[in-house]
Amino acid sequence: MNYAEESLRLHGEWKGKIEVVSRVPVKSKEDLSLAYTPGVAQPCLEIQKDYDKSFTLTRRSNLVAVITDGTAVLGLGDIGPEAGMPVMEGKCALFKAFGDVDAFPLCVRSKDVDEIVRTVYLISGSFGGINLEDIAAPRCFEIERKLKEICDIPIFHDDQHGTAIVVGAALINALRAVKKEIGEAKVVINGAGAAGIAIARHIMDLGVKHLKIADSKGILSDPESPNPAKAEMARITNPEGFSGRLADAMAGADVFIGVSAPHVVTREMVASMAPGAVVLAMANPVPEIEPADALAAGAAIVGTGRSDHPNQINNVLVFPGVFRGALDVRARDINQPMKLAASRALADLVEPDQLSSEYILPAAFDPRVGPAVAKAVAQAARDSGVARI
Amino acid sequence: MNYAEESLRLHGEWKGKIEVVSRVPVKSKEDLSLAYTPGVAQPCLEIQKDYDKSFTLTRRSNLVAVITDGTAVLGLGDIGPEAGMPVMEGKCALFKAFGDVDAFPLCVRSKDVDEIVRTVYLISGSFGGINLEDIAAPRCFEIERKLKEICDIPIFHDDQHGTAIVVGAALINALRAVKKEIGEAKVVINGAGAAGIAIARHIMDLGVKHLKIADSKGILSDPESPNPAKAEMARITNPEGFSGRLADAMAGADVFIGVSAPHVVTREMVASMAPGAVVLAMANPVPEIEPADALAAGAAIVGTGRSDHPNQINNVLVFPGVFRGALDVRARDINQPMKLAASRALADLVEPDQLSSEYILPAAFDPRVGPAVAKAVAQAARDSGVARI
Repeated sequence: MNYAEESLRLHGEWKGKIEVVSRVPVKSKEDLSLAYTPGVAQPCLEIQKDYDKSFTLTRRSNLVAVITDGTAVLGLGDIGPEAGMPVMEGKCALFKAFGDVDAFPLCVRSKDVDEIVRTVYLISGSFGGINLEDIAAPRCFEIERKLKEICDIPIFHDDQHGTAIVVGAALINALRAVKKEIGEAKVVINGAGAAGIAIARHIMDLGVKHLKIADSKGILSDPESPNPAKAEMARITNPEGFSGRLADAMAGADVFIGVSAPHVVTREMVASMAPGAVVLAMANPVPEIEPADALAAGAAIVGTGRSDHPNQINNVLVFPGVFRGALDVRARDINQPMKLAASRALADLVEPDQLSSEYILPAAFDPRVGPAVAKAVAQAARDSGVARI
Repeated sequence: MNYAEESLRLHGEWKGKIEVVSRVPVKSKEDLSLAYTPGVAQPCLEIQKDYDKSFTLTRRSNLVAVITDGTAVLGLGDIGPEAGMPVMEGKCALFKAFGDVDAFPLCVRSKDVDEIVRTVYLISGSFGGINLEDIAAPRCFEIERKLKEICDIPIFHDDQHGTAIVVGAALINALRAVKKEIGEAKVVINGAGAAGIAIARHIMDLGVKHLKIADSKGILSDPESPNPAKAEMARITNPEGFSGRLADAMAGADVFIGVSAPHVVTREMVASMAPGAVVLAMANPVPEIEPADALAAGAAIVGTGRSDHPNQINNVLVFPGVFRGALDVRARDINQPMKLAASRALADLVEPDQLSSEYILPAAFDPRVGPAVAKAVAQAARDSGVARI
């Protein structure tokens, strides 16, 4: 099937992939008096008296905003706010299908960090959570950081943290499968954008001790880089200032994690890795190396972002359950303990005796995924003190 | 029934009166490839190439934002943005039920005109229309005016224009019933807030030539009033600078229109009106005069905002159809010709031989209302050049 053509045709037919419907009857005068005036004055007054009741008396309890500025949409780049909306609507449809979370898409016509932050803050009383989506790095870091400071609901940039969580789960299980310890594994990340940096932070918190990060210019080694995230990562992961290219980083490595560009990894590079090599090549839709090539070069486990290969590493395994869990306990934040719990819960859905080179993660449609992630995230929220209930 | 108590209980059960659902299947890998990646890239690129396609390839085509700052919610006043949300959700439920319009509620945490304007503008690419709601006067005028200047979708402050349109329809039919010409009728409006001023402008455009407006301080007569809307109305409706109280304005008047406060009109004031007097007492929930008192004092026709009296004058007769019509032709604006057409279409739903002192407007649940208003509004949009299709 030509997905591009067929998807365009369907989008014309669908007239939107989400819909706002009423949950209440409005068929009689009495209905109207209860759902609307005069009765509705009472829940209004209750919220005025007690702000927390906005989470029980309105849809806020189950509602997440999916917000983009349209600057980093899929692999298409800066296509503009309105043009990003089909992706945002798709995301909302997935939120509902996999997490029973109501999600509503909003595009913001600004590329100014402070303006985007202010806009999202000003409308944040309408939602129980904010999912930032497809906002270019490094702006996305700043927007997320500032929003987390001023908002009292969870702020989650899925391109960073959703990816980091699912990669973390894949890493845990891939290393289990090849029987290596996470603290001893040598890991290489290629790509130092939003996803690469977030993965780096996340897997270090999961226990990775030996990490190198590369971008198109080679291994991050400049602690004075004008990109603050890259500078920080260079300091943390490469204190000795080792410089080199991706191939240098991969020689002897146990794990390759790619969030970069098509076909930038060769068979030779994979062959240079340690025995039992794990290759997670997630450039989408064309991975850093084709799975067949990686396997031929000796990789033990290969994962990609694609649904037509084994071991699909897909954020849809993560974001519905993460927000479901956060909403269930009215969390004020989605913090690091919650994200780590999500990775571990996702990994634990594959039993040790089921683990294989072709099965390191549950499938996107596995109905256990959303509830398991939600439960772990809710518990971590309670344990870390950000749950309201 | 104790509506306050029962409504509060129900709001706790409902957990929100609206819900965001998916319109597309996401049950298989193929579904995902069409509604989401990789297929979704194509509609994104089409919108990037042609902005107008955002109206055909996303839900924008049927989507209205219901936006408040929470400063003038029902009769409750400035209760805060989150506390206004039960009303906004109720409004959204009515939009769907009576106009098949998807409406989504947003509260904005600001009272600054320019900040509210900027916020709404920045997210306006996500919607096909903006319904402003329960924003205090005179700020609401400024917000609406500025948004109309910069947005390419309809901006409609329902408290002003929805009220003006339904009152316009009631006025047309009440005068038909008492066999008076609109250009000869002496009309008094009590209340010079958002609704009163909008009604004044609207009914003058419908043909009213003899109008006096009063507020709690009496008849508007100061052309230099610090409130620009009141100053303008004083200049237009009272060039001779006649000053006096509401009772003075009502003596000999044909029509009283109240959007003011409970029980500010006495039997004596109604008795002083011309024969065949029309009293539209819309203070809510307690009208300017009880219908029984107005009738006892000689009024020929009495209408109120309440559903438990005849002649309910309710915005729900207007806003669903107005936006339905505007969305149907992808209007850039809801302009005065569209608003006047809405009043006339609504009035024309009551046949001359059906008109009576107890039946000047169709009932809120009359299924003809939404489509008739929509049709007239769409046609007026085309005729006045603001329709995209």
